[in-house]
Amino acid sequence: MTLTDPVQVLSALIRCPSVTPLEGGALATLESLISPLGFEVERVTFRDPDTPDVDNLYARLGGGGPHLMFAGHTDVVPPGDTAAWSRGPFSADIADGMMYGRGAVDMKGGIACFVAALARHVEAHGAPAGSVSLLITGDEEGPAINGTEKLLAHAAAKGERWDAAIVGEPTNPDAMGDMIKIGRRGSLSGTVTVQGVQGHVAYPHLADNPLRSLIAMTAALLDPPLDSGNERFPPTNLEITSIDTGNTATNVIPARATAQFNVRFSDIWDGDSLGAEIRARLDAAATASALRPGRGAAHYEIEFRERPSPSFLTRDQALIDSLSAAVASVTGRTPELSTTGGTSDARFIKSHCPVVEFGLVGKTMHMVDECVALDDLEILTRIYQAFLQGWFHRAGAN
Amino acid sequence: MTLTDPVQVLSALIRCPSVTPLEGGALATLESLISPLGFEVERVTFRDPDTPDVDNLYARLGGGGPHLMFAGHTDVVPPGDTAAWSRGPFSADIADGMMYGRGAVDMKGGIACFVAALARHVEAHGAPAGSVSLLITGDEEGPAINGTEKLLAHAAAKGERWDAAIVGEPTNPDAMGDMIKIGRRGSLSGTVTVQGVQGHVAYPHLADNPLRSLIAMTAALLDPPLDSGNERFPPTNLEITSIDTGNTATNVIPARATAQFNVRFSDIWDGDSLGAEIRARLDAAATASALRPGRGAAHYEIEFRERPSPSFLTRDQALIDSLSAAVASVTGRTPELSTTGGTSDARFIKSHCPVVEFGLVGKTMHMVDECVALDDLEILTRIYQAFLQGWFHRAGAN
Repeated sequence: MTLTDPVQVLSALIRCPSVTPLEGGALATLESLISPLGFEVERVTFRDPDTPDVDNLYARLGGGGPHLMFAGHTDVVPPGDTAAWSRGPFSADIADGMMYGRGAVDMKGGIACFVAALARHVEAHGAPAGSVSLLITGDEEGPAINGTEKLLAHAAAKGERWDAAIVGEPTNPDAMGDMIKIGRRGSLSGTVTVQGVQGHVAYPHLADNPLRSLIAMTAALLDPPLDSGNERFPPTNLEITSIDTGNTATNVIPARATAQFNVRFSDIWDGDSLGAEIRARLDAAATASALRPGRGAAHYEIEFRERPSPSFLTRDQALIDSLSAAVASVTGRTPELSTTGGTSDARFIKSHCPVVEFGLVGKTMHMVDECVALDDLEILTRIYQAFLQGWFHRAGAN
Repeated sequence: MTLTDPVQVLSALIRCPSVTPLEGGALATLESLISPLGFEVERVTFRDPDTPDVDNLYARLGGGGPHLMFAGHTDVVPPGDTAAWSRGPFSADIADGMMYGRGAVDMKGGIACFVAALARHVEAHGAPAGSVSLLITGDEEGPAINGTEKLLAHAAAKGERWDAAIVGEPTNPDAMGDMIKIGRRGSLSGTVTVQGVQGHVAYPHLADNPLRSLIAMTAALLDPPLDSGNERFPPTNLEITSIDTGNTATNVIPARATAQFNVRFSDIWDGDSLGAEIRARLDAAATASALRPGRGAAHYEIEFRERPSPSFLTRDQALIDSLSAAVASVTGRTPELSTTGGTSDARFIKSHCPVVEFGLVGKTMHMVDECVALDDLEILTRIYQAFLQGWFHRAGAN
């Protein structure tokens, strides 16, 4: 095993079938790989009555500041129908310049490149002038209950403090150098249930069709748009993800109906203000709808799912500049600074230190035949190496 | 058994557990009751590969014209939770002036009163100056495939022709004399399926949420109203009876969604014109919706369920007047001439002869503790008796 070669490191990680929430040998492999670099490694299992136990890893190299964290996960989504894969999903087979396997880009590949970059840095310059930590969870693709958030709290309780963090999730839509994530939209999910009165379709005045209200209420959630975005965030977007009634009798007006929704929201909103806006729109539509004329307010309930995940934006310009410069120096391209896409564990890290995200090309993530170009592994390793050098240089100068 | 007493006749019929599609002895009992009056009775079983076999009865008294048909059914809806009944659902128990049992008002009661009225007529005046037929099915509460429609065709094929018909369904909402039905709205059911593109809620531009279209399309079906009715028909009414998606993942935009609808329509529409209007509204909403801006026309399919049941209106003024006068003479009230409510087997009869409907008070139909006031049985028997006398008088004079 040559630690400076990301292909060899990734190959070892992919061969561990760490389908969330299973450790699958992935954290043990990582531990054995990084220990020779001088990392002090702690493995910690978190438990929760409602979810499976999950293994996590925290490792620190060096004792002083400045302190940089690399965060990621070794758990992967299930391969699905393995017969549909052209290569074994845990084979790490190489063909035509691509390595195949679940987690190749999301995100064992990111971890492999960071380990290789750090090994190259140590080989070339010795240990960084400060500390580097790896915060690696096995609960990013699962419920994220026993993962990054608890691991951060656990380490912080032991006195760990970080100056900046980089998450190795795949951030590039099409090619290396496309995009750095400097923040993320928030996420809020909920269920609206309208209670009506069941009855025969021929006697609608004796019934109260909950779908009349629900159609008007979901339309009110969608239109007008919640905002048009700002210079850093794309527009807030609400999707109705399901409407369900379960009524199979064509001559019966149903008693109740439900709608599920999810909002990905900009920093124009927080969970409270967005929740209030949603309630206001639902109240207005439930009270006065052209689809349900001449009735009082419809009776409905709204249940928000767990706590909303808030939006955030990284304001550490030195961190952003270090990463942008590293990307530009290796790829010759200026990456977009984006807040698009789904949530990531950066939403937990941002409470501890500034955080940015950069990794591989995400096109095949979660798909059959997930794979990564060997060239991209080399590019990302060089970018991380340049970032390490640049960030410690800037941070050390302050 | 005193045939002129509707209480005794009804008691015998209720004790036959003729839960649709079972004959349960009800048609056999009726046959044995009416044969002594001089009826020629035919029992006929209809078969269809997709539904159960069903027994029916056609009986004629007299050979000449004019020819009056009384139509009805001996099948009843299931009693449901029999433990919830305060009396056995097939007991015909009498308490506080009420007879209890499934079918008491819907519509063994109507049959019992007509049989008693006819027996009184024969006793007082001899056989009517013309013919009276009973067209009784066991498939009104079921799919109505092996019932009235086939029985009419069967009799017509044998040369039977009718001048008028009365259906004994419970037509009075609250009290005897409230309402005669002189027509019915049509009924049209269908399913709309919108095909979208599945995707992650964080990347809505890569997906196409079918619910955005379906919400807009169902709203367009509901508003504006299809018509405001006319002097004989209440407004056409459309109900969305179910919307279903079945998506349990809150972070996934679903691939497809369906809506079911039913329309009860006035004679302003027929099945074709109404279907065209529905398609036009769906097309418009699928093409240009504020809920799905900047996209082309949504891809949807509509499937209409079986053939629509058309609306109809009885135009035989002598028939309507005979029945109204009979109701007024017994109750002292002027009945409303209505086209409200659900469909009935009158929709089949109207193709053979003018048809009106009058029976008991429907309040307890299909409910636990279905029951009929003994007083109402006597009132309805007298009304049918007055109607027989009046109708044959008018029809014979022509």
